[in-house]
Amino acid sequence: MTSSEAGRHLARFQQERARLNDLVLKYAGRGIKRLYSIDAQVYEGGALPAKTKELLGLVASTVLRCGDCIKYHLINCREQGVTTQELDEALAIAMVVGGSITIPHIRRAFAAWDELSENH
Amino acid sequence: MTSSEAGRHLARFQQERARLNDLVLKYAGRGIKRLYSIDAQVYEGGALPAKTKELLGLVASTVLRCGDCIKYHLINCREQGVTTQELDEALAIAMVVGGSITIPHIRRAFAAWDELSENH
Amino acid sequence: MTSSEAGRHLARFQQERARLNDLVLKYAGRGIKRLYSIDAQVYEGGALPAKTKELLGLVASTVLRCGDCIKYHLINCREQGVTTQELDEALAIAMVVGGSITIPHIRRAFAAWDELSENH
Amino acid sequence: MTSSEAGRHLARFQQERARLNDLVLKYAGRGIKRLYSIDAQVYEGGALPAKTKELLGLVASTVLRCGDCIKYHLINCREQGVTTQELDEALAIAMVVGGSITIPHIRRAFAAWDELSENH
Amino acid sequence: MTSSEAGRHLARFQQERARLNDLVLKYAGRGIKRLYSIDAQVYEGGALPAKTKELLGLVASTVLRCGDCIKYHLINCREQGVTTQELDEALAIAMVVGGSITIPHIRRAFAAWDELSENH
Amino acid sequence: MTSSEAGRHLARFQQERARLNDLVLKYAGRGIKRLYSIDAQVYEGGALPAKTKELLGLVASTVLRCGDCIKYHLINCREQGVTTQELDEALAIAMVVGGSITIPHIRRAFAAWDELSENH
Repeated sequence: MTSSEAGRHLARFQQERARLNDLVLKYAGRGIKRLYSIDAQVYEGGALPAKTKELLGLVASTVLRCGDCIKYHLINCREQGVTTQELDEALAIAMVVGGSITIPHIRRAFAAWDELSENH
Repeated sequence: MTSSEAGRHLARFQQERARLNDLVLKYAGRGIKRLYSIDAQVYEGGALPAKTKELLGLVASTVLRCGDCIKYHLINCREQGVTTQELDEALAIAMVVGGSITIPHIRRAFAAWDELSENH
Repeated sequence: MTSSEAGRHLARFQQERARLNDLVLKYAGRGIKRLYSIDAQVYEGGALPAKTKELLGLVASTVLRCGDCIKYHLINCREQGVTTQELDEALAIAMVVGGSITIPHIRRAFAAWDELSENH
Repeated sequence: MTSSEAGRHLARFQQERARLNDLVLKYAGRGIKRLYSIDAQVYEGGALPAKTKELLGLVASTVLRCGDCIKYHLINCREQGVTTQELDEALAIAMVVGGSITIPHIRRAFAAWDELSENH
Repeated sequence: MTSSEAGRHLARFQQERARLNDLVLKYAGRGIKRLYSIDAQVYEGGALPAKTKELLGLVASTVLRCGDCIKYHLINCREQGVTTQELDEALAIAMVVGGSITIPHIRRAFAAWDELSENH
Repeated sequence: MTSSEAGRHLARFQQERARLNDLVLKYAGRGIKRLYSIDAQVYEGGALPAKTKELLGLVASTVLRCGDCIKYHLINCREQGVTTQELDEALAIAMVVGGSITIPHIRRAFAAWDELSENH
């Protein structure tokens, strides 16, 4: 991947995600729609701030090794003001808990973070 | 992805799957070949109809988040006459059991279903 | 385990499950309660009959290797009139998809089924 | 389980955990010992406070469904001053990400929290 | 657990495993029986010796965190002459790949090994 | 994929892996760096030869279905002199333990092995 390709990676990810979510809405019934609604609600700030919740979502996604979920929470972490050192400490916990099998996802997480950092 | 690219997606998936299965046959010994044989047998209609068994395979593949397995069972579900509403209800169970971590696969499942529906 | 102990196993499981659900209700907020509600809804009969949905829940629980979830769906399968042959075919799919790592759970599933059968 | 049995549950868990860790130290070589050391280090307060790190460990353990790991982090969460509402919000994220398959562990997590609360 | 209880642990495990396998044979059809047959075959010595294959089964069982599977392969490892140092190196790989979430199973693996060593 | 594309697949994998590891080193703190160090150490020859350890890593990666990890260990297996028959027997164990859900990764493993074999 050249660096200009890398630079467009997260933008393409978000476009494709939006296209596919439209297809889910075209077909999905009440059960899936209610789950989508809860999935948005639980990350809203409450007793725990939204920033902490995004880190919880990021670590959960990393130990379960879901690339799309990791990218989604990384974008939100950036928006919530997570610093690089906070990100590193959260991903270190994910890597300790989840093992070396998470390394390919952690590599791509730092690459996405690098892209997000360049854009800010 | 443009819509014409999307339209060729499942056809390419099946070609690549066949190419790779030939490579497995080139190298695999008795253990793997016996497992391939059982993997075909358990989805044949019996006390449970083949259609129900494909839905079982689809939901198992979705909660275990195996993209290729999902596509394979979706194609078979279509051939067995599964309706869109039946598919939605099965995937809602998969999403409840497996959580939001299955959403990226459920998005792609509906996209594949959309492609299969256009071709029929 | 003697057979009289085995005979009381599922009854104890259901009592303990009820005791713990009371504790969840004591502490849980809106997010968890909404998920409990959806978890009940998606197994209701619709385009797919409730019996098929319980088999989907059983197979999903087996490949994800959740002992409590397997017992819960087995009890419901029995109530929905699933036959032993249908159960065997569903668990064979779970075992093919999920591998030998599911065998300890499949052993206990048949033991629970045996107990349920004696009680009927 | 009677309530007096429940009251002794976490104390027994910690005794058994200590007994088994002694056995690990009796047999384990350099690799496992280094991993034990890192496993302690990554939860120390840094850019993220220790309390947040325990919640990250708790959510990671819940979506991966490790009962012993959940109990361990719950005890640490209590020591770090996590409130019941914070716990509920963290477990709601774990349950959304990990699905209904996490419910048996979330039930036992609230039961352990109930025991910890009684002891304080 | 007292040490005399611990000393009977693996013997009880094998009795219960045999009792449950009888129940599987009582109910299971052709699919599950064929899988049981392959499950025995793949661990037979071939190009790789049986000892190496038991270590492969042990590490696979550990990263997938199946307690019964781990005990089963530990007993076979002992019979195949695996040494304590070899076991430690194999479990270190499992722990690195699978992460700290495997630690509770690795603790119990060393406890079972300790029991097996006392009996020899 | 044409055969010339396939022929360049592993080379591209290694280049991308190196590029991303540089990004990890750019951002990662002490925790992640220590884990990288242990991840290298545990595969060094000891009581078990390095070849056996690479097979352990390969089988662990296959049952956990990590494509990048599988490719990495396949390359190392080739360098350690693993034969095609040994590879087949190890992957048969992985497929029995992990189930048909591992088949897509086993297909790609044999495809990568085919490419490695052509290059030797």
